[in-house]
Amino acid sequence: MRALIPYKKENAKSRLSPILTRMEREQFVELMLRDVVCSLREAGLNDIDILTTSEYGSLAGLNVNFVIDSNDLNESINKYLEKIDQPVLIIMADLPLARPEQVKSIISSKEDVVIVPGKGGGTNVLFVKNPSKFHVRYYGMSFCNHCAIAKDMHQSLKIYDSFLLSTDIDEPHDIVEILLHGHGLSLEYAKEKFELESGRARVKLASIQ
Amino acid sequence: MRALIPYKKENAKSRLSPILTRMEREQFVELMLRDVVCSLREAGLNDIDILTTSEYGSLAGLNVNFVIDSNDLNESINKYLEKIDQPVLIIMADLPLARPEQVKSIISSKEDVVIVPGKGGGTNVLFVKNPSKFHVRYYGMSFCNHCAIAKDMHQSLKIYDSFLLSTDIDEPHDIVEILLHGHGLSLEYAKEKFELESGRARVKLASIQ
Repeated sequence: MRALIPYKKENAKSRLSPILTRMEREQFVELMLRDVVCSLREAGLNDIDILTTSEYGSLAGLNVNFVIDSNDLNESINKYLEKIDQPVLIIMADLPLARPEQVKSIISSKEDVVIVPGKGGGTNVLFVKNPSKFHVRYYGMSFCNHCAIAKDMHQSLKIYDSFLLSTDIDEPHDIVEILLHGHGLSLEYAKEKFELESGRARVKLASIQ
Repeated sequence: MRALIPYKKENAKSRLSPILTRMEREQFVELMLRDVVCSLREAGLNDIDILTTSEYGSLAGLNVNFVIDSNDLNESINKYLEKIDQPVLIIMADLPLARPEQVKSIISSKEDVVIVPGKGGGTNVLFVKNPSKFHVRYYGMSFCNHCAIAKDMHQSLKIYDSFLLSTDIDEPHDIVEILLHGHGLSLEYAKEKFELESGRARVKLASIQ
């Protein structure tokens, strides 16, 4: 079994630019990636491939493999799936709330395909037991795409229900969830820069001056 | 074991007013409540109390009890907890994605208190085995409040991780999740009024003309 983590560092997470500079965002995505890798390892998943357009020397300490591909996300993942002949967990790098418990539970599912939906129709984690019988179609309503693909390919399907894994960090208010439910390097980083502001409604993010 | 559902109909869900009239919102919250009640019953929870400021005749068919209390949410729930001597599941009425599986899993937990966090520090579901040893403090960072109260009262605590139960329907984009992951009356209603618009990013809501 392997894990595949699509990862982009250059000018990543542009929707966080109102609160983090480009350099900070690039630092932050690396810390989130490190937290994800750490949770995978704690769940016993040690063969980890980072899918990216260029190798990042600074990640050397992570002891991961790089799959360098300059194609579109879907094309490069589908090329990857064609080549491997073992189960694969495709997990996004911006899911620092991922915990080993959830990862273990997903990779031990009896179903052929497990989909963890993100907010707004996304696919945050995808577990594929038979890569030759699946292909991906990210972007837009990818959750629906992946359900349909599993059905078309006669693969049994499980939808895995997780708030932590549904929380990809895209916008400033998502960092609230790191401060509330996070751990590791991304929590440390978020705590250095932000604090929670509480009123009657949902908690808000405030910058630490 | 009982369930308690705080419910407000008059001018409910004002943040949905850009897309639903007052009358539509009042109709919609009742349908969401009915879906929640249905999931509770399917999970075997039949003693259901609706906490509200005034009795709603139109809910008669639901076969629920009314607890009428004009006090603040926290005050009225704490008064309720003082009176009962059995485990209680406090679940919000705006959680139409709730499914019997999750409810069953929560009420069969071995811990004294189970908290299901909502987005932004909220508490969407709260299971309290020993009502005399707990009190609530909703609003603001209620998730943190409830964790602290469980600790102070020496009650063992479980945080239950669920995307479906973290999704309270407050804002227009939350209705996207009903269209994607919903069921029952609220899904039917949402499908009558809205459709999904898909691009490369998260799915958006569009009104059906």
